[in-house]
Amino acid sequence: MPDTTKFVLTEKQLPSYWANVLPSLKEPMAPPLHPGTKQPLTPADLAPIFPMALIEQEMSMQPQIDVPGEVLDIYRLWRPTPLFRARRLERALDTPAHIYYKYEGVSPAGSHKPNTAVAQAYYNKQAGIKRLATETGAGQWGSALALACTLFGMDCTVYMVKVSYHQKPYRRLMITSWGAEIFPSPSDKTNSGRAILEQSPDSPGSLGIAISEAVEDAATHPDTNYSLGSVLNHVCLHQTVIGLECKEQMALAGESPDVVIGCFGGGSNFAGIALPYLLDKLNGSPVRLLAIEPTACPTLTRGNFDYDFGDTAELTPLLKMYTLGHRFVPPKIHAGGLRYHGAAPLCSHLLHHGWIEARAYQQLDVFEAAMQFAKTEGVIPAPESSHAIKAAVDEALAAKQEGRKRTILFNLSGHGHFDMSSYENYLAGKLENFGFESELKQ
Amino acid sequence: MPDTTKFVLTEKQLPSYWANVLPSLKEPMAPPLHPGTKQPLTPADLAPIFPMALIEQEMSMQPQIDVPGEVLDIYRLWRPTPLFRARRLERALDTPAHIYYKYEGVSPAGSHKPNTAVAQAYYNKQAGIKRLATETGAGQWGSALALACTLFGMDCTVYMVKVSYHQKPYRRLMITSWGAEIFPSPSDKTNSGRAILEQSPDSPGSLGIAISEAVEDAATHPDTNYSLGSVLNHVCLHQTVIGLECKEQMALAGESPDVVIGCFGGGSNFAGIALPYLLDKLNGSPVRLLAIEPTACPTLTRGNFDYDFGDTAELTPLLKMYTLGHRFVPPKIHAGGLRYHGAAPLCSHLLHHGWIEARAYQQLDVFEAAMQFAKTEGVIPAPESSHAIKAAVDEALAAKQEGRKRTILFNLSGHGHFDMSSYENYLAGKLENFGFESELKQ
Repeated sequence: MPDTTKFVLTEKQLPSYWANVLPSLKEPMAPPLHPGTKQPLTPADLAPIFPMALIEQEMSMQPQIDVPGEVLDIYRLWRPTPLFRARRLERALDTPAHIYYKYEGVSPAGSHKPNTAVAQAYYNKQAGIKRLATETGAGQWGSALALACTLFGMDCTVYMVKVSYHQKPYRRLMITSWGAEIFPSPSDKTNSGRAILEQSPDSPGSLGIAISEAVEDAATHPDTNYSLGSVLNHVCLHQTVIGLECKEQMALAGESPDVVIGCFGGGSNFAGIALPYLLDKLNGSPVRLLAIEPTACPTLTRGNFDYDFGDTAELTPLLKMYTLGHRFVPPKIHAGGLRYHGAAPLCSHLLHHGWIEARAYQQLDVFEAAMQFAKTEGVIPAPESSHAIKAAVDEALAAKQEGRKRTILFNLSGHGHFDMSSYENYLAGKLENFGFESELKQ
Repeated sequence: MPDTTKFVLTEKQLPSYWANVLPSLKEPMAPPLHPGTKQPLTPADLAPIFPMALIEQEMSMQPQIDVPGEVLDIYRLWRPTPLFRARRLERALDTPAHIYYKYEGVSPAGSHKPNTAVAQAYYNKQAGIKRLATETGAGQWGSALALACTLFGMDCTVYMVKVSYHQKPYRRLMITSWGAEIFPSPSDKTNSGRAILEQSPDSPGSLGIAISEAVEDAATHPDTNYSLGSVLNHVCLHQTVIGLECKEQMALAGESPDVVIGCFGGGSNFAGIALPYLLDKLNGSPVRLLAIEPTACPTLTRGNFDYDFGDTAELTPLLKMYTLGHRFVPPKIHAGGLRYHGAAPLCSHLLHHGWIEARAYQQLDVFEAAMQFAKTEGVIPAPESSHAIKAAVDEALAAKQEGRKRTILFNLSGHGHFDMSSYENYLAGKLENFGFESELKQ
């Protein structure tokens, strides 16, 4: 099939397990610490907000974890997702590189986020939990969890960063259409929210504040648990369904990637596509794994590798991770999903030990790549995912300069249907760059 | 495979031809008439605004028309589209019926419209045309043609009904993101537009007015042609790729539909899924073909079968069709794509001779079905497509009442990502019904 563009799998080929890299790591990960005692966290510490099945996955040493049948039953509403060879983009770049992209935008919520939302809702329902509380920034995660909860008949409460609540009405409406309740954060529903409102009644909110509110909500209601859309090991685990499918699809294409790319906010979509390839790399494969973040929030390329809180109110465990500090407030770039001060401890660990690379891009360069993609491959990408596109383009141009083939695989983690005003601002010349111009850690 | 949910085809299984039903019709269709002479239209009459290849397709007697390689090359950016069995909806309805839906929302524009936009752009480019002019209501068609033009490196001008231009900013932004120019209609760019503005400077516009503007633009610029997103034979022809894929996918499912359903505005998405099955019906198959329209614009169920203009300014040929009159202005329902006074002459002919059925639904019933679908199958559907969902639900409930299996296939022609404000209004109890409560022509 020399000219195949779209590599599809039947639902029989849907992976029946998630790939857990924890038992294969060469170096031990630093444990999360209790925020009060500073001692390594125990399962009992997490029990007030997570079901035991997810706590076990957080530290499991089983290399493969079965996907429950009811989760598979929902996955196949959109999975396996298609893998495309970006032949039209390759032609536009006049490159010898082969560019492949995995398209997660076909999920009902339009991104990769439901892969873990569905799993988390399932395990919570099994544990007798009636309601899930969570935070959301731009709304990708909140909409994914609202979808998962409605499919399992559970209630869902979303604390949405106030500035996004007002600026991104369509994602907010998607969340309410699936039956979830939603509050602009900081809200008057929690002590954390009220404390912020008292100090600054006009606070635009932040992901850190919204996390504090959702965690508090879960911790203070016995029938309610907390659900996190990124960062944690079990979230990265659930996303490995992406990379596992890619491996089957790249086999159909008769190729193997030289470099695997994902954009990076908290780390879940990068982990999803990269971790199954990490297992090869740990066994000697030369594949490069490349995480892309915005210069406006350069956690991996400029942060410190240290213990830090996941939230503003210091309610979460201390996680050993690359961090810009838990009070860091990034500029208002349009890739809202990449505006987080920290990074998944697992991905931080891999970067620290040289298993993965990180690179940061400026906002305008990212939108330029997004436009080129939209005009060649058709799909209007999410600003977050466009960071991966920019890197794929750069890798393809590097291959051209070398005059050698390079096989590039990236995760197109979502579409941009709810980001059209960002494109309007870009086309009107109203977007600006943030952060450093040089010194990229590559 | 007793429990398969998603039926996928490889791109090798993408149909290589469109199915043309014209040579198989049992009764002759009435020809289109010249608006001035009232004589049957000749190919030369259409040449100022259409390329000869499309004019030939408009009246072709070949049963199969090859899809050009360059069109296939673009189709496979999203085609073949998936066919799903709606098992979760079936369970919610507790019905013995099997419900299948073809999901066209996976295209970059989010609907079935690119199937013909790509073909039309291709044939126009082959004919040396540099620019296409068109109208759009809610924006589905305008975004599809903007996508097709950017993929072929052509210019595109879209006249968007003014009220939608302001109320649907996201679709407008999608059109501009793909590089098309867009004017709110009535505009000061054409004589037709200026005439309306002179009479009523605050005119909200209508599809009929926007068509007049686009046709005039094309007729007065030698390098520019006109492109229509529905109604005409060649548009219905290009959409048959939908039904042809369905037949392959239903064979994978080991079933054959008892009833095939599509929502109906101008007729192209209904024609796309139904016409390949019409060929079976013309050969004795008992399959029912069911077109669904809103009671607010009941062209098929309440219109007259007569010659009428396609536009307000009486620039188009006279078409023999079900029509509410070319000056009919439907109420502002949220299914903007179904607000057209006329119906495809081909579908009108089939209805008149009893080959297809038509049914009309109230807006609130349609949104109720849409919500049920979103909460069981996940996808938030376009309000237009939700008319087909409502009919599928009713067919499934009828099967339940009979206590007999019924195999139902409907076209989910697009997602509702750009219609979230409609859902907001529905959930807030702000939507109303329009039109008749009884006397549905079934």
